[in-house]
Amino acid sequence: MISIVSLGPGGENEISPRAVQALEHSDVIIGYETYVDFLVPRFEHKKLIRSAMKQETERCRQAAELALSGRNVALVSGGDAGVYGMAGLMLEVLDTLEGNDIKVEIIPGITSACSAAAVLGAPLNHDFATVSLSDLLTPWELIEKRLTLAAEADFIICLYNPASRGRKDCLRRACEAVMTVRGGKTPSGWVRNAGREGQTHKILPLSELKDEELDMSCTVVIGNSETRVLNNRMVTPRGYKTKQ
Amino acid sequence: MISIVSLGPGGENEISPRAVQALEHSDVIIGYETYVDFLVPRFEHKKLIRSAMKQETERCRQAAELALSGRNVALVSGGDAGVYGMAGLMLEVLDTLEGNDIKVEIIPGITSACSAAAVLGAPLNHDFATVSLSDLLTPWELIEKRLTLAAEADFIICLYNPASRGRKDCLRRACEAVMTVRGGKTPSGWVRNAGREGQTHKILPLSELKDEELDMSCTVVIGNSETRVLNNRMVTPRGYKTKQ
Repeated sequence: MISIVSLGPGGENEISPRAVQALEHSDVIIGYETYVDFLVPRFEHKKLIRSAMKQETERCRQAAELALSGRNVALVSGGDAGVYGMAGLMLEVLDTLEGNDIKVEIIPGITSACSAAAVLGAPLNHDFATVSLSDLLTPWELIEKRLTLAAEADFIICLYNPASRGRKDCLRRACEAVMTVRGGKTPSGWVRNAGREGQTHKILPLSELKDEELDMSCTVVIGNSETRVLNNRMVTPRGYKTKQ
Repeated sequence: MISIVSLGPGGENEISPRAVQALEHSDVIIGYETYVDFLVPRFEHKKLIRSAMKQETERCRQAAELALSGRNVALVSGGDAGVYGMAGLMLEVLDTLEGNDIKVEIIPGITSACSAAAVLGAPLNHDFATVSLSDLLTPWELIEKRLTLAAEADFIICLYNPASRGRKDCLRRACEAVMTVRGGKTPSGWVRNAGREGQTHKILPLSELKDEELDMSCTVVIGNSETRVLNNRMVTPRGYKTKQ
């Protein structure tokens, strides 16, 4: 059996009891090293397997092998495992192992969009789109097209992976794509380490967001045409009709 | 002090310890009657205030008055309070009370998109857009425009509030808007009561989704151009470049 376990933002008090139960019932816990390290204090009596970044496919194969050998495996994923997480890849790898009878359960968690939004106020309170700025597996042209169409549709836009060492420029390019449609005064914000140690955030106009120095631990929210800053918090109203 | 507390999907084991702590520290718990009823077994020693649907503004005013009278108030919201929930309205109401010094914290939770996706497989594993089909506060023309642009951008689309007693027809119209861009064979699915008692789900092509009889307890996911059904689960790959 494989449990794909969402760990939420990273604080011990934001992981669900269901996720903790699955970890307790597992024989082996496998995941990206940072997440496994986070679990050490509570689960050091388990077999823990730390896997490196970019070894995701290998990690899923190892989880499958362990399950085939009769262990209960917990594959952990930060935030929600189903949002830019490990759930999809694990199901794809299992599909290649014909005739296996491995049981899989997916345990949801609090995704970064929600943990970051709670820090910024209530910016996601209407229709929103999430876009990852990582172009490792997605052509940049498609990312930019999505941003432009999301802006035209007046979606609130939540950016995952807004920057990394190899991609310094993509936040600026993303902001410029949105600004071709939406004004530079649009309330925007970023949160670093949302819901965990070292949490910081900033609310600023879209025109200034493009010059911020962000990294993989940050999540960005760009408001829609109705988003306002009230008492230093981003707030998107529930609807449009109240204005008429 | 007001804590805006996300209850997650509704099961006792999917509410975060941080949310439970906030409820324990409150003097009064106020919320939509269904959510307050859900809390009765654990919190019947608290003052519980059940509020009816469509009384959201009144509910927030009452929460503010209670806080001004010195109580610690927990305003509860299903799923994540920041996603079509109570967080935005509460901040808007507080903004109208000039000079108040009410402290507010927002506690995130597992939103329906994530709890429903975990039941269906891993459909949200790439960029996605959430759209509420409720036209109470948003003109239907804008909802339809968003669906069309989201389909053109190849976002996975998650529908909140796909139907209600007064809006039997909107799911069919939404599916037709997406089908003008994306094929009728696109893997889609719905979940009723995701993560709580009475959970059921169905995976089916987009062309058949439009005729399903859904209600407010359902969440819908429509795949992107890459979404596949593997072992009766919806799976969206992490990217596009692997195909090249």
